[in-house]
Amino acid sequence: MLNFQFYNPTRIVFGKGTISKLRELLPAGKRILMTYGGGSIKKNGVYDQVKEALNGFDVIEFGGIEPNPEYETCLKAVDVVNKENVGFILAVGGGSVLDASKFISIAAGYDGDKWEIMKKLMPLPQKVPVGAVITLPATGSEMNCNLVISRRETKEKFGGGIPSAFPKFSIIDPSVTFSLPTRQTVNGIVDTFVHVMEQYATYDVNSPLQDRWALSIIQTLVEEAPKVLKNPNDYDVRANLFWCATTGLNFMIAPGVVEDWSTHALGHELTALYGLDHGQSLAVILPRLWKALFNEKKEKLAKMARIVWNVGGTDDEAAEKCIALTEEFFRSIGMKTNLSEYGVDAAEAAAELKRRFAERGVNPGETGKLTPDVIYKIVSES
Amino acid sequence: MLNFQFYNPTRIVFGKGTISKLRELLPAGKRILMTYGGGSIKKNGVYDQVKEALNGFDVIEFGGIEPNPEYETCLKAVDVVNKENVGFILAVGGGSVLDASKFISIAAGYDGDKWEIMKKLMPLPQKVPVGAVITLPATGSEMNCNLVISRRETKEKFGGGIPSAFPKFSIIDPSVTFSLPTRQTVNGIVDTFVHVMEQYATYDVNSPLQDRWALSIIQTLVEEAPKVLKNPNDYDVRANLFWCATTGLNFMIAPGVVEDWSTHALGHELTALYGLDHGQSLAVILPRLWKALFNEKKEKLAKMARIVWNVGGTDDEAAEKCIALTEEFFRSIGMKTNLSEYGVDAAEAAAELKRRFAERGVNPGETGKLTPDVIYKIVSES
Repeated sequence: MLNFQFYNPTRIVFGKGTISKLRELLPAGKRILMTYGGGSIKKNGVYDQVKEALNGFDVIEFGGIEPNPEYETCLKAVDVVNKENVGFILAVGGGSVLDASKFISIAAGYDGDKWEIMKKLMPLPQKVPVGAVITLPATGSEMNCNLVISRRETKEKFGGGIPSAFPKFSIIDPSVTFSLPTRQTVNGIVDTFVHVMEQYATYDVNSPLQDRWALSIIQTLVEEAPKVLKNPNDYDVRANLFWCATTGLNFMIAPGVVEDWSTHALGHELTALYGLDHGQSLAVILPRLWKALFNEKKEKLAKMARIVWNVGGTDDEAAEKCIALTEEFFRSIGMKTNLSEYGVDAAEAAAELKRRFAERGVNPGETGKLTPDVIYKIVSES
Repeated sequence: MLNFQFYNPTRIVFGKGTISKLRELLPAGKRILMTYGGGSIKKNGVYDQVKEALNGFDVIEFGGIEPNPEYETCLKAVDVVNKENVGFILAVGGGSVLDASKFISIAAGYDGDKWEIMKKLMPLPQKVPVGAVITLPATGSEMNCNLVISRRETKEKFGGGIPSAFPKFSIIDPSVTFSLPTRQTVNGIVDTFVHVMEQYATYDVNSPLQDRWALSIIQTLVEEAPKVLKNPNDYDVRANLFWCATTGLNFMIAPGVVEDWSTHALGHELTALYGLDHGQSLAVILPRLWKALFNEKKEKLAKMARIVWNVGGTDDEAAEKCIALTEEFFRSIGMKTNLSEYGVDAAEAAAELKRRFAERGVNPGETGKLTPDVIYKIVSES
């Protein structure tokens, strides 16, 4: 096991009817900035539940935060925080709204060029605390200090962790996810799956408990995913999937292990270039990345095949089956795994990604073996 | 899954050589009270490492905290905190030293009858923060808000959680456990095993991820325990066992599930009456408690037998094997599981425990079926 530090001070309030607990969680006498996105919370009843819980509080609303939250939009909210004497930011929605709110709070207290905060992931404090009512099981933002912010003007997108950015609390009521479109449910499952893999499918450092915890999330996803497609209104299934999403990226499976994050690095580029959903881009990359780095990953992949799918055989055989079964799982829940299915020319995408990573001069991943040439191979085979 | 809240703000600093990180973790300019026990830290080198890390800090030492920390001793430390303007308490040792330090900090800020704090588990704030260098994998105190304090004068022992009592940080260097006596290593493994069972072996509420995480700890214990007895100086094995102990009681496996804690309730009485080690008392009770409440527990026990020991058969058969294999595991690592082996008359102990629980008028456990008569049966068969 590697040396590690673990720290996660977010309070999770989980279950049916928990939005009403907002009254106990918010600081009394402070002006609340309620942030949200494009209005889906007005359709699924969450907006009304939150407004009811906030009855008697001094609340300013700030809607319109984009799915890939935009720097310019955040700056408008920063102005509101500073001019209106806001004392708490309450994010209501998915990971994007919460990511934006984390940034808004930090940027509100910084007088320099605020884009530098994301560019350098500056370890600045939050100006005011942030809390969340989280409605989408996917990013894990509800229980980590990560945020991703985009800037259209410069075509940049930066993400990562800033230590102060943990939400003070996150309320998770799985029943608000009953009405999620299938596409978002599936994206969230794949996103969670790949988050776990970025922390598991590397090389072995003798961390049996962390490995088992990681694979526990995968086993649960594989078990619950078909159920949610059949019965989207099954509370227990929705609750299990949400807890998988939260634990998939609250770093409880990460202490002492080697992390990867190269599937995300490549996927982000596909999203930026061709507009693939985040989950879609990950599903396209992951199986090919594993094939390209087979020797580096096969020990963990074989272990996964044995535990999750009860596969026998040698390490090589089991690892190969793991790759096939992972892609099969994605396809079984309706996630397409080939670039051509999204109307993208794989050769063209491969050339562009090779160019971009060569320009940066740093190979992503845990072994340094993901060179621009290997990236070309992965994407061209996607 | 049940509704839940999860909150755990302790920073864990884990690994070889981490005691030197104390300098970064302690507040500058504050007077430190360094608490410890009977002096084992002076033999295993921890005392020297801590003193070296504290070079330049203003430190007062307070040694002599007992294995079952004593109220009167804690009161003496409370006086030191208040008279000497202490700004931080650093516990160095096992769970007892840390439990005592949690209590000392809370009691130092309370003017009333300080024993009431434990009796009623009063949700008071800490007067000063507490941190730890933890040297024994067992209680999990390093990452929870629990504490147990004894009072010889009144023959009372109270324990439980007080929300403010989380350590600010805990340093865990598994290499300091190389020199642990086998008895303490084995006690710690059994203690961890039973902590997990108190959060797992109840009734099913559809919590597949939590169940898998719990059983992951058990699988790891079963795998690593024989190794540590053979190679006590194997760093990876010690590290894996320590992380099992910490995660066994930091409540990461508890959210949304039903908890039990009756093995602890009965075990505490055996410790108080006959001086059995905490781990020993648990090993004696657990298998018989499962037999007595077989119908209430069999679904979870069968699941455990299948996952941990790959057992087939019906639920009844698998659950019975789970009980037998658990006791076999305890005995295989040298833990005696019969009261007679500790020189205790089971019939006499059974009568006394029946009397004590009848007097209290509350049945321990998750189902209310652990009546004084059932307790008599369990202990008399132990």
